[in-house]
Amino acid sequence: MTSLPIDPPARLLMGPGPINADPRVLRAMSAQLVGQYDPAMTGYMNETMALYREVWSTRNEATLLVDGTSRAGIEAAIVSLVKPEERVLVPRFGRFGHLLAEIAERAGAEVHAIDAEWGQVVTPSAVEEAVARVRPALVAIVQGDTSTTMNQPLDELGAICAKHGALLYVDATASLGGNDFEADAWGIDAATAGLQKCLSGPSGSAPITLSDRAVAVIRSRSRIEAGIRDAGDESSADFVRSNYFDLGMILDYWGPRRLNHHTEATSMLYAARECARIILEEGRQAVIDRHRLAGGAMLAGVQALGLEVFGDVGHKMHNVVAVEIPAGLDGEAVRGQLLRDFGIEIGTSFGPLAGRVWRIGTMGYNARKDAVLTTLAALEQVLRRAGVAVPTGGGVDAALDAYGA
Amino acid sequence: MTSLPIDPPARLLMGPGPINADPRVLRAMSAQLVGQYDPAMTGYMNETMALYREVWSTRNEATLLVDGTSRAGIEAAIVSLVKPEERVLVPRFGRFGHLLAEIAERAGAEVHAIDAEWGQVVTPSAVEEAVARVRPALVAIVQGDTSTTMNQPLDELGAICAKHGALLYVDATASLGGNDFEADAWGIDAATAGLQKCLSGPSGSAPITLSDRAVAVIRSRSRIEAGIRDAGDESSADFVRSNYFDLGMILDYWGPRRLNHHTEATSMLYAARECARIILEEGRQAVIDRHRLAGGAMLAGVQALGLEVFGDVGHKMHNVVAVEIPAGLDGEAVRGQLLRDFGIEIGTSFGPLAGRVWRIGTMGYNARKDAVLTTLAALEQVLRRAGVAVPTGGGVDAALDAYGA
Repeated sequence: MTSLPIDPPARLLMGPGPINADPRVLRAMSAQLVGQYDPAMTGYMNETMALYREVWSTRNEATLLVDGTSRAGIEAAIVSLVKPEERVLVPRFGRFGHLLAEIAERAGAEVHAIDAEWGQVVTPSAVEEAVARVRPALVAIVQGDTSTTMNQPLDELGAICAKHGALLYVDATASLGGNDFEADAWGIDAATAGLQKCLSGPSGSAPITLSDRAVAVIRSRSRIEAGIRDAGDESSADFVRSNYFDLGMILDYWGPRRLNHHTEATSMLYAARECARIILEEGRQAVIDRHRLAGGAMLAGVQALGLEVFGDVGHKMHNVVAVEIPAGLDGEAVRGQLLRDFGIEIGTSFGPLAGRVWRIGTMGYNARKDAVLTTLAALEQVLRRAGVAVPTGGGVDAALDAYGA
Repeated sequence: MTSLPIDPPARLLMGPGPINADPRVLRAMSAQLVGQYDPAMTGYMNETMALYREVWSTRNEATLLVDGTSRAGIEAAIVSLVKPEERVLVPRFGRFGHLLAEIAERAGAEVHAIDAEWGQVVTPSAVEEAVARVRPALVAIVQGDTSTTMNQPLDELGAICAKHGALLYVDATASLGGNDFEADAWGIDAATAGLQKCLSGPSGSAPITLSDRAVAVIRSRSRIEAGIRDAGDESSADFVRSNYFDLGMILDYWGPRRLNHHTEATSMLYAARECARIILEEGRQAVIDRHRLAGGAMLAGVQALGLEVFGDVGHKMHNVVAVEIPAGLDGEAVRGQLLRDFGIEIGTSFGPLAGRVWRIGTMGYNARKDAVLTTLAALEQVLRRAGVAVPTGGGVDAALDAYGA
């Protein structure tokens, strides 16, 4: 088989993620490797922990990376925190709530779900009612569900869980970096993310942070693997049903014991570290504000093009908007022309929204004025050619107004 | 927290892996991202499958990547192939055999092990005796165990397993690319690897290949996750106890259905693809021969320095040698000086060999004459300064002789 050197076409990725990586992240990944216990490497690991404490807004010592995509981080958190037969409550408001329930079911948990209508978020009172009724060991919830674009308010949930003795896990894959997130102030016990959304990196590394309460649960299930176990290392009968995702062993690898587990994915660690450096250099709040501005401009732009927006806009994530496909229009044909002729990718949809909405992202490196304006300009042209009556320049004007320009 | 741009020190990584990435792989990873269903991306995925069929020497359609380190590939294979309570036989001859047993235990399997002494391999007759006695659903075995440097002969094991109705899984993490491997000719049902050894890439992507027989077992356990499930999709009661590692769903993502699972780790896919291209351009057999030559030269060199080699040298992997630390010498001090003063990393050891041997690798991009000679020259100097009587130039001369120079 012959194949050519990697040479991807130029794309402006304005879907729900992955989006374009910040070129700084790509350059960081091109750095040469060092050994896994080289002082340089363990130094980079420690720096990465410290950087992500700021990104998550936490003092959690246990702030590290899981080597895999964002879904690997979710599974690591759930299988390490929940024993088989334990109850897990999943408040759902989109596809990724179903994923949390699915992962918990596969881990042998007794899963209870409450559902908000797609396009809405879950109320704290509904969560509290369900927590009091189900008495779960863990409440698992998505912050930003790209399937509906909703951003679930979390600020009251930590206190509710703590009051009822449940741990609170949050999947912040799509939201972290582009929306408010306060791990400590909100009382979150575990949270995971990915790099490929608002963090401006490639998929393949999952930042995670764990409260002391979460670490205590994980430590109570400790089992060090045969082959590197010392005589004094006791094994719990409740050991985690995964080796790769056993956060106790991953913590021992990232912590002072430096017990060998996996071989850290060095290039992805370089990427994750650079993603955090970029955010903290600009300023954590400034990055969130940039997402708010870009998302607001995109929202104003599509509305000014005469398009309807799906869901409760007051609870929309800053970084993605779901746009109703006008009746009679072939949504996939529009997406196809945008990609083929303009090199711009916007997203399709899942489940109940399949064929009903496009999802347009403004996230990470692409939460930029030029990316917003270019996308709106191209969308106007494609809609016009597809026979949709669009006000000439309306989208760009509204977005420029939102930018105050 | 302030931190500096990534800027790792120059290292020549001559341990048991990770080793230096081929600069071509690092350049491939610096390519910009495309969307996960972009025709360019699905094209790269298909090319990667085809390239790895050649690397594995197989016609298996199911040849793809698991997104995680080599250990992620191992766990995906075992949890997808083995149901809880099923029997797994693990012939062990080093630390990574213990890892296979550990992963199978965590997956709920009934694990039976047979052990060869460290420094030896397992005989086919011992495997056959155990297979006939245990009647396992799966035999799981390491090909090259870096903990002892042994390279397990596999050519008779496929027929033994097939005769007794067992599947054969091989962990080729440390061996693939540098040693003979014939997935089809040897009757191997599943095999996994990592990039960070003989494939010259970074850790973080796990190539995997699955025979039709293995795929049939995986398909019999099919469960498509809620949220993307169609009305016609049935779910097996024997579903895999992991979502992330459910190879059935991963196959549906890589296959023509392109069902969303994880978001492929694009940069790591670029890396894995380039690793395979590099090997196939040089020629699969030529790369194995280069490893044989470099490993032989390193072996001759350390022996000519008066050092003893651990284990059955006739069954050593080409890409790593275990060198006995001379009595009375502080092995860690020697390793430390090599790293600090010469920028050369060699490996320490685990378990029964901890403190007894150094492990010196000649793998992937570093299976090169200059890397072998530089390492031997530096080792001679460090040993001399530590008070070991070493024949001046002996190591380099012997290695040059092995190279026929």
